[in-house]
Amino acid sequence: MFIETMKKQDNILIIGAGLCGSLLALRLAQRGYKVTVYESRPDLRKVDISAGRSINLALSDRGFKALRMAGVEDKAKEICIPMYGRLIHDIEGNTFASNYSGREGEFINSISRGDLNGILLTEAESHENVTIHFNSKCLSVDIENTKAYFKSYETKEEFTVDADVIFGADGAGSVLRKSYYLEKKFLFSYSQEYLTHGYKELEIPGDKDGNHQISKDHLHIWPRGQYMLIALPNLDGSFTVTLFLGHEEGKYNFKDLTSEEKIKDFFQEQFPDALELIPNISEEFANNPTGALGTVKCSPWYYKGNTLIIGDAAHAVVPFYGQGMNASFEDVYVLDEVLNEFEGDWDQVFKVYQERRKKDADAIGTLAVENYYEMRDHVANPLFKEKRKIEMELESNFPEEYFSKYSMVTFNEEIGYHEAMRRGNAQDKALLNMISDNEISASEMVSKESLATILEKVQKETNEVLEEDKIAGL
Amino acid sequence: MFIETMKKQDNILIIGAGLCGSLLALRLAQRGYKVTVYESRPDLRKVDISAGRSINLALSDRGFKALRMAGVEDKAKEICIPMYGRLIHDIEGNTFASNYSGREGEFINSISRGDLNGILLTEAESHENVTIHFNSKCLSVDIENTKAYFKSYETKEEFTVDADVIFGADGAGSVLRKSYYLEKKFLFSYSQEYLTHGYKELEIPGDKDGNHQISKDHLHIWPRGQYMLIALPNLDGSFTVTLFLGHEEGKYNFKDLTSEEKIKDFFQEQFPDALELIPNISEEFANNPTGALGTVKCSPWYYKGNTLIIGDAAHAVVPFYGQGMNASFEDVYVLDEVLNEFEGDWDQVFKVYQERRKKDADAIGTLAVENYYEMRDHVANPLFKEKRKIEMELESNFPEEYFSKYSMVTFNEEIGYHEAMRRGNAQDKALLNMISDNEISASEMVSKESLATILEKVQKETNEVLEEDKIAGL
Repeated sequence: MFIETMKKQDNILIIGAGLCGSLLALRLAQRGYKVTVYESRPDLRKVDISAGRSINLALSDRGFKALRMAGVEDKAKEICIPMYGRLIHDIEGNTFASNYSGREGEFINSISRGDLNGILLTEAESHENVTIHFNSKCLSVDIENTKAYFKSYETKEEFTVDADVIFGADGAGSVLRKSYYLEKKFLFSYSQEYLTHGYKELEIPGDKDGNHQISKDHLHIWPRGQYMLIALPNLDGSFTVTLFLGHEEGKYNFKDLTSEEKIKDFFQEQFPDALELIPNISEEFANNPTGALGTVKCSPWYYKGNTLIIGDAAHAVVPFYGQGMNASFEDVYVLDEVLNEFEGDWDQVFKVYQERRKKDADAIGTLAVENYYEMRDHVANPLFKEKRKIEMELESNFPEEYFSKYSMVTFNEEIGYHEAMRRGNAQDKALLNMISDNEISASEMVSKESLATILEKVQKETNEVLEEDKIAGL
Repeated sequence: MFIETMKKQDNILIIGAGLCGSLLALRLAQRGYKVTVYESRPDLRKVDISAGRSINLALSDRGFKALRMAGVEDKAKEICIPMYGRLIHDIEGNTFASNYSGREGEFINSISRGDLNGILLTEAESHENVTIHFNSKCLSVDIENTKAYFKSYETKEEFTVDADVIFGADGAGSVLRKSYYLEKKFLFSYSQEYLTHGYKELEIPGDKDGNHQISKDHLHIWPRGQYMLIALPNLDGSFTVTLFLGHEEGKYNFKDLTSEEKIKDFFQEQFPDALELIPNISEEFANNPTGALGTVKCSPWYYKGNTLIIGDAAHAVVPFYGQGMNASFEDVYVLDEVLNEFEGDWDQVFKVYQERRKKDADAIGTLAVENYYEMRDHVANPLFKEKRKIEMELESNFPEEYFSKYSMVTFNEEIGYHEAMRRGNAQDKALLNMISDNEISASEMVSKESLATILEKVQKETNEVLEEDKIAGL
């Protein structure tokens, strides 16, 4: 799977020991670099610091690809809970399932952020050329002289770390990225976009025997247009529930939901079946922080061969495609490929890395925001439901030939996010318009032959949509 | 046209006495407010400070609408030079004209930024309730307490200005906007996007009699894919020429063009006819600054009823649609309309203003970047040329029924930029695809009847494009 290459002289500093930083540390250590990591939080293997953060995440094929490269796929799989589709809960408490794929063996996985991070930290630290320091907050980075300034939360002292190369794997609020913005050494294109909605985490505990109270084989969704609840299973029988709600807009919003009574009224009206399963809703609502949902896009990601931002630091995304962690892991995979070609010349490595990766990182940011609207508004829309039904049959009957946009993004790790978006959006547009114009319908799907006809029509129409865009210069 | 309304008690502070700030000062003074303006630069009526900035700009119907509201349209028209279309210069020195509209009386105007700004400053200062201070640089704004901190370039002293309401009309590098970003009092969605190209201004002087050496009735363009030159006429017989060129990319770029020889070789190869007209090219190239081309979008624009950013401060755009000044002036027009409805409640005024204006400001930012690619790459493309030919005939024969995207954006000030973009892009896509599929062609335009058939086809196809997007949820 991988070999320890010759020891290299470059001193690598990684800011951040989260999911991306710890996988990056592991991989660079495997390549023989001397790696030092500084993380602002305490060691999550020793302290529970999950409060208020997503405590489980969706892991899928792009993430596995990168974990496999670093030899830790199997360890990760041991703590995965497969989710085969969405289970939609309507307001009357009825549920209907919607598979993620019509193919066998294609599913996503609920995994504990903390446990996976712990595995990666331990693996990284098993290499003698890796040192990880916790409780050390990065204050700023001198990108010209490749120095980073830190403050220790333990000693309260400030200190400087000099390195040959600095990676900012320091998340959506990246200090290295902020140094790019404030130092103005180059034209820095930068975008931070917030949704009008925020989120809050709640819990459905396991039953008295530690079993899951609702299907653990699904990602649960309660879509209500302006409001949405989702739930992912944990190994201990519980579910982590996330409420998505406007900060200030709409009939109900975070600003107004200030009393126990208002909270319960809201849930009773919109999510009565979920309310019964969340016993500590009032305490959790009051104590768990309200998170913001932001997308970050920027360019360039690097300064000379000195510094690079990676993962959320370069491209934070909203959680609605379940791809945030996967995209960050895939960053490390792509960087590793570029290192195979250009190792020894960091200027060139960073330049080529951004050329290859930027359009895909932008695409997953866009896709995730689009999926926010689809999950809220469209999963209950008849046109979208019929599309999904047809797509499941096409994938099941023509597994080598048909891939929905969701499949391309989630399960087809050999094509990039940008190509998945381009082709997937054209295909969706073709499908929805053909269904709307009664050119295809789910009721026609009576035989393999009739499905073959539908497949042919969809492929032809998709290519026409792409061709029309191309002629229009889009 | 307007009346002096009753004197109001609110003290208004405007940061910036550029085009937007001075029109805003004038209009708020006309409405009876006590207005104080601070500008970082010297008084441009007394000092020539145009070096390196766009010294002429395109003024069109949206701008005139706002100037009319403030009673200064006629004064502006006195210094306008009408430009009826583009004059494209190819590499052999051939030229061909492309009108901006097929209708009578639709043209854009070249106008001196400094002269127009001077008119607005003088008009504003003619009101006793307006005071304008120059050489006063805003350092930061306390948005909670509605105070702004300045430094005088004359006395070198720092001072504080307390106001009831603060407007940031302080341009693309707005200090008020920066305070929004840094103070983190709210979720501030913010985007600054730079093109890989920059610009530099040069001059074609008038001939010895002070006459224009090339047609003054056109905006001149030398499109060369990766490079582009444009020229707008001035009243003194000269043209201001702008070179658009990659900062670091391409065979020729600003980084590499460091010697007189290289500059002349570049112009000799790409713009030989223009080179003959720019006698001081070496000095100008060396002495005039290289400007960056950036688009700013952000939200919210206001904080409570305390502060508002307006004009470039809220939505800087690249210059390729000739709409930057017009969009800023239209901001003042829209704000004035909202004041007619909600005057007395600044919270409400700012909220409603952003609701009405934001999508249009975003649209012109997007349109301007799109036009950058069209001007560089498409004006010489046969498909685009045929489209333009058909559109001119449609506008000329059906002046009440057909409007090109350019006309909607530039001459139809009663519809917003966003609607102009939505409808214009669909129409362009319809036209280009029908031409490409031989469903319509310029050679068919032999009679009013054949044109009526083309018009009908274009309208039908445009509506289909819009309908298909709608069904796809776009």
